[in-house]
Amino acid sequence: MTNQPHEHIVKSYDEEQRRLVGEILHMGAMAVAQLEAALDVVERRDDRAAQRIVANDVEIDKLEAKISHDVMQLALRGPMARDLREILAGLRIPSDIERIGDYAANVAKRSIALNVSPPVPHTTNLRALGLLAARQVSEVLDAYRDGDADRALRVRARDAELDAQYTALFRELLTYMMEDARNITPCTHLLFMAKNLERIGDHATNIAENIWFLVHGDQPLPPRDKRDETNTTGAV
Amino acid sequence: MTNQPHEHIVKSYDEEQRRLVGEILHMGAMAVAQLEAALDVVERRDDRAAQRIVANDVEIDKLEAKISHDVMQLALRGPMARDLREILAGLRIPSDIERIGDYAANVAKRSIALNVSPPVPHTTNLRALGLLAARQVSEVLDAYRDGDADRALRVRARDAELDAQYTALFRELLTYMMEDARNITPCTHLLFMAKNLERIGDHATNIAENIWFLVHGDQPLPPRDKRDETNTTGAV
Repeated sequence: MTNQPHEHIVKSYDEEQRRLVGEILHMGAMAVAQLEAALDVVERRDDRAAQRIVANDVEIDKLEAKISHDVMQLALRGPMARDLREILAGLRIPSDIERIGDYAANVAKRSIALNVSPPVPHTTNLRALGLLAARQVSEVLDAYRDGDADRALRVRARDAELDAQYTALFRELLTYMMEDARNITPCTHLLFMAKNLERIGDHATNIAENIWFLVHGDQPLPPRDKRDETNTTGAV
Repeated sequence: MTNQPHEHIVKSYDEEQRRLVGEILHMGAMAVAQLEAALDVVERRDDRAAQRIVANDVEIDKLEAKISHDVMQLALRGPMARDLREILAGLRIPSDIERIGDYAANVAKRSIALNVSPPVPHTTNLRALGLLAARQVSEVLDAYRDGDADRALRVRARDAELDAQYTALFRELLTYMMEDARNITPCTHLLFMAKNLERIGDHATNIAENIWFLVHGDQPLPPRDKRDETNTTGAV
């Protein structure tokens, strides 16, 4: 913990703002690392490593609590209306990162459940989906670092690709379940893992929209189609 | 919209704080109504009503954006450190309510997908789970209205019951899938619907923890067991 209750040197508003952006980026990098580690343990069927990922999630949660506390302290110091957007983004983006961390931990947790059954050959597409999700998160964090709203919009647009991959995987898993009842339990875990990865993409999109808001204020975003198609299609 | 950009009468800090709590409670009641409506359309297999629920979710999202804007405006007006907890709760609780609204809309959406298949007899337990989730949300909102941290803790404790019901339903659905491959598609939707309801319970728990924080500050909460057991059990 570098947080000291009584710091002797009070940082300027701008310095503190920059420090907080740095903390948020650090938090984001932790979430991406957790996600990549979770994808690895699925491949390696390593329960012990999966448990470490689940335990590590607490660190991300703690960091969110600390950042939201510090952002609010900053808000109370700098009562300028122009800072409102930065403060709101500074509260919302860590909340999305925290959720990404949760989903990564969940993928790791379900991999433990998956390892009770014999290996299933369907994890390759899950991995591809997860790597795309990790890329989305990394890139949106870069856009946040650079205050690059155009790049954020490109990440947001690419979410459709992730959704298409998710929908394809979802349908594929259903067919495996229908072919052989022994696939039902492991494939159900894979369905939920895929859903977690799809949700990570949604949170990357939320972050992208917050970057837009940070840069452009209330200027409206173009509407987007809803992502996950599996909940509106009854057929396999 | 009752929001006027240039109000002639500036409300006092405390009046505005009370108004915002009222808005948050209103938002919460909207989410509960959406959830109850979603449970009804599952029973009635009413696609049109389900679509209305999905469309209504936008209103909850708008209200969250408005509330978080107003809370921040209030934060910028009252630079007293003692207000920090109220401000944070005023931002976090609407965010949980917004998610509850999302999950309710998702249940409605999946009911449309479910209606493509012949009726399945497994929706009774889903309804029981959903009614418990709705009760959890209503009660935690009452605790917020009354600033009642003990009641909030009771809601939080009861989440274990909801999780147990969820886990039982999850296992039951898996057995139906194994019995007959034609059940796989509808039961997969029911699995995700059940998961949405379990997540609503988690958000009620988050709200309960925020009420504790609001009332007792940094006084630590007792640790809790993690809820959803389906992701750590490989067996059916």
